[in-house]
Amino acid sequence: MRIGLDIGGTKIDGVAVAPSGAVLDRVRVATGSGPDAVLANTLRVIRSLVDRTGTPTTAVGIGIPGLIDHETGWVRHAVNLGLSEVALGPLVADALGVPVQVENDVNVAALGAAQAMQLDGPRAYLNIGTGLAAGLVVDRRLWRGARGNAGEIGHVPVLADGLPCVCGQRGCLETVASGSALATAWPGHAGNAATDLFDCADAGDPTAIAVRDRFVAGVASAVRILVVTVDVESVVIGGGLAVLGDRLLAPLRACFDAAARSSPFVASLGLSSRVLLAPTDQPLAALGAAFTAPESAIAPA
Amino acid sequence: MRIGLDIGGTKIDGVAVAPSGAVLDRVRVATGSGPDAVLANTLRVIRSLVDRTGTPTTAVGIGIPGLIDHETGWVRHAVNLGLSEVALGPLVADALGVPVQVENDVNVAALGAAQAMQLDGPRAYLNIGTGLAAGLVVDRRLWRGARGNAGEIGHVPVLADGLPCVCGQRGCLETVASGSALATAWPGHAGNAATDLFDCADAGDPTAIAVRDRFVAGVASAVRILVVTVDVESVVIGGGLAVLGDRLLAPLRACFDAAARSSPFVASLGLSSRVLLAPTDQPLAALGAAFTAPESAIAPA
Repeated sequence: MRIGLDIGGTKIDGVAVAPSGAVLDRVRVATGSGPDAVLANTLRVIRSLVDRTGTPTTAVGIGIPGLIDHETGWVRHAVNLGLSEVALGPLVADALGVPVQVENDVNVAALGAAQAMQLDGPRAYLNIGTGLAAGLVVDRRLWRGARGNAGEIGHVPVLADGLPCVCGQRGCLETVASGSALATAWPGHAGNAATDLFDCADAGDPTAIAVRDRFVAGVASAVRILVVTVDVESVVIGGGLAVLGDRLLAPLRACFDAAARSSPFVASLGLSSRVLLAPTDQPLAALGAAFTAPESAIAPA
Repeated sequence: MRIGLDIGGTKIDGVAVAPSGAVLDRVRVATGSGPDAVLANTLRVIRSLVDRTGTPTTAVGIGIPGLIDHETGWVRHAVNLGLSEVALGPLVADALGVPVQVENDVNVAALGAAQAMQLDGPRAYLNIGTGLAAGLVVDRRLWRGARGNAGEIGHVPVLADGLPCVCGQRGCLETVASGSALATAWPGHAGNAATDLFDCADAGDPTAIAVRDRFVAGVASAVRILVVTVDVESVVIGGGLAVLGDRLLAPLRACFDAAARSSPFVASLGLSSRVLLAPTDQPLAALGAAFTAPESAIAPA
């Protein structure tokens, strides 16, 4: 049995996974803030899963939002969790006596989506949350790139005169196609800016339609860059904004179909059939964390 | 001994390569036009290399500009060579009784550069010729992507109101950062538009400086997209415009350094040290053709 954890800003989502891939049990607790609370709650979830299943775990995988050194298991920065320079992997490995792998949250969600959707070959998982980033997976294994940064597509500039980005550049894809971009472009909607925007656009509000179409065009750019540059077989849309479901997918495909009509090259890419939605009813990140590569896991000291 | 051929618009460049990677001999002949001439001249180069080295060849790799099916060895379209739907791989394999691999010319040049420069890990070879395209290589093996189209970065749109591209889109990178883009932006220079442009820019011509800087910014965009999306360790600049050498590399690095000053993210990428020039004194495409994967070669019937 393997355990996968998705440590998010508000909760830790843990699953126990059988060698077959079947989810045996699932536990969720509040994350807390700061290294002591996060470590204690992490161990609590793991021990709870072991107790409830009555099965020892052979490995633990952890996904966490922030800058991770997957080789050492250290969390460099995870601002939302109050973590900076924390040896999370080694600490958990030492406490439990099993190998632990720590990964970026988008990467584990990418692995989880490939696993849950049974996608082989090269695939991208495009996470549209507060930010915009992709995880690349080849045959259900992570493609990390030379320095562990593959898929940072949110920081490709696409508008010469665009908005300033948190990264210091201007007009990055993240300034157009992300939750934070929608919150800026459709302000004053404290609940879910995306749902509200799409509702207003559906109701015919011309400003909402323009904002929505600009967002969809940005997502389309991200998908196209991934397909043209990496030639992934498909791009799976995930993250918080994947709850938009077909309301996002339909205009996205319309955008690709319009481009295909004027460009034989775009038509040859077959983009409409290469963009997929991640399932929103499964703990993809926790599931993917359980499938992170065991051979590079941090062994207990 | 393996033989690698670079079939170009004007000449066929062939090398015989020892198992050590050493180039044993090199033969060049005019390509000719149409299937009969190209096939006859291809066989002539191969037989000449076998005769001159006195060594039988165990495999042949061929690089050719155009749309190739590397699995079947068919050339779908190679407009400059007058080829359309030609079974080049099977025909050469049958004539010589050795396995033959046919590849896109940019892909074989990418392999040749990785081999000649001894580059391991993930690398991109950015070919700036008439068009703009990249070949991706991981540990000196081609990364073709899901459908054999990885690295088609020339057709990523970067300017919303840009020039029409041959692909049917507008503002593609190829409309900014390619030999054809320079010929359009700096017209009336029949010899080498790039060299003339850079000469005039160096002499202080403000129009030439503006055209050069726009070209360099386009190349910088291509490099940045490859590093950010694929996280290749380096991007090797090759193709016809690589003869610009340091005259291209110096402003390119200045462009990266300026972006790094305003963006910690760009600074963290270390782009200046990740862009390299391909050697211009070696037959990279022919060399790379000799190193194409033998396991997927077309066997003689």
